[in-house]
Amino acid sequence: MEEHDGAGMRAPDQSVEFTQVTQWENGEVRDLQDSLAAEEPLEIRIGDVPLTVTMRTPGHDTELAAGFLLTEGIIECREQIGDIRAVAPKSGSRGNLVEVELKDSDFDPRSLQRNFFAASSCGICGKASINAIRLRGLRQPDRNFRIDPEVLCGLPELLRSEQAVFSKTGGLHAAALFDAEGQLMAVREDIGRHNAVDKIVGWALLEGRLPLARHILLVSGRGGFEIAQKALAAGVPILASVSAPSSLAVKLARELGLTLVGFLRGRRFVVYSGAFRCIPAEGLDSDLRA
Amino acid sequence: MEEHDGAGMRAPDQSVEFTQVTQWENGEVRDLQDSLAAEEPLEIRIGDVPLTVTMRTPGHDTELAAGFLLTEGIIECREQIGDIRAVAPKSGSRGNLVEVELKDSDFDPRSLQRNFFAASSCGICGKASINAIRLRGLRQPDRNFRIDPEVLCGLPELLRSEQAVFSKTGGLHAAALFDAEGQLMAVREDIGRHNAVDKIVGWALLEGRLPLARHILLVSGRGGFEIAQKALAAGVPILASVSAPSSLAVKLARELGLTLVGFLRGRRFVVYSGAFRCIPAEGLDSDLRA
Repeated sequence: MEEHDGAGMRAPDQSVEFTQVTQWENGEVRDLQDSLAAEEPLEIRIGDVPLTVTMRTPGHDTELAAGFLLTEGIIECREQIGDIRAVAPKSGSRGNLVEVELKDSDFDPRSLQRNFFAASSCGICGKASINAIRLRGLRQPDRNFRIDPEVLCGLPELLRSEQAVFSKTGGLHAAALFDAEGQLMAVREDIGRHNAVDKIVGWALLEGRLPLARHILLVSGRGGFEIAQKALAAGVPILASVSAPSSLAVKLARELGLTLVGFLRGRRFVVYSGAFRCIPAEGLDSDLRA
Repeated sequence: MEEHDGAGMRAPDQSVEFTQVTQWENGEVRDLQDSLAAEEPLEIRIGDVPLTVTMRTPGHDTELAAGFLLTEGIIECREQIGDIRAVAPKSGSRGNLVEVELKDSDFDPRSLQRNFFAASSCGICGKASINAIRLRGLRQPDRNFRIDPEVLCGLPELLRSEQAVFSKTGGLHAAALFDAEGQLMAVREDIGRHNAVDKIVGWALLEGRLPLARHILLVSGRGGFEIAQKALAAGVPILASVSAPSSLAVKLARELGLTLVGFLRGRRFVVYSGAFRCIPAEGLDSDLRA
């Protein structure tokens, strides 16, 4: 317990806050203490120019900023980050600011404001989006990467056993990175699914591990277009989710050769694109083999 | 079945697409047809100036645009909309554009681009956010509105029975509006929870029903800050969710007097703010009574 504020006490791990609530159950009323997923805005600045403000769960803020810069196409490699720092909170406020100095980059944040909406939402139709992404230089992920379907089925349980916050608050999304043997490399949680993915990608970027050409990215919720786009930006060959993908995520995955797995639950999963990477060739129709 | 594209056939209702997938189950591989939640970008223009592009599930596009304009503080009432129209698709493309003509408004979309990030994410800390919202003129919702807790408990089942798409694709969020007697007024679904809420608010705006001072808004997922903000913009006194709210949503609800209900499941719910509207006074501590 570190700090008081309007929504209650702050736990030491930043991602959970505690607060008093009133429970109604079958007409019986009780006062309880409940835990909440922390949500606060983070501003990312390039030099002293504000780039964006995102609502996120505090923690791993420099990773989030680094991942955002990469997955939104603002930088292409770690070497373009001259400096990145979470600005320490002033007395009475919180550290909700990350400042980045770029180098070897012709990116001008002042020129961005007008077009950034379009860039982050990727154009005005699915076709335009996919073309815009191609123009950004995204490449097809490694076609030689394979994973055993039995290994794939084991990943959600590994994620669950690592997830610190979700079970406490019921309010956080998780993203996890695994290698080809199903070893867990990193887990990040956030109130925004896209932020959890940016934190993973930023971690890999800052660790010098990009592209993630022999890894699987697992997300706890839906696999939407933006998640697929971020996975591709990091070079991930397999994106898996315990829930359903969207139509545009499937379209993007098929065009760019990303393996997209949904409904990964128990000993069952559904493959929407690139089945050759996670189902042995003898089980596939000939047109689905690599 | 109307149309072919990369991710499969388009169903007549626009919000679902069908596609071929490969299922792996216990080592057995099968080809199946699966349904996907449709996701496509929608551009909103003020006159001929692009305002934003949002990834949304097609359908109710003018409602979505109208609701977005209101909940983001660009307009305050229906009378400020001179004209709003979904632009018909050209041959070979889809109608992913809504054009709005404003009247009696000093809003200049050209001036917006630079500040819009900050506006839509509401400042750089929770405190600044709430101040920014106050400045926007949001008022405390009706303090005299009450709902019977038994009525509240019945709402999720009414929503489920109306939800056309969610059960088919597992991929859509829903928002539903109820009156004080628990009568369902409108349901909207979208791949983005905030879009489902904007569609509800836009429906109410275009029907001349704002403010929603005697209504309950129920969302199928988490109650985050942006959802609470949109509910307040529409004058809704009770926001309920089947899942957990975020810390900043709770903070905002407490400051502005919104009743925030979470974990509304079966005959149980948790109240994070404004318990007096949904729990009879005799069950409450004296400091929680209105």
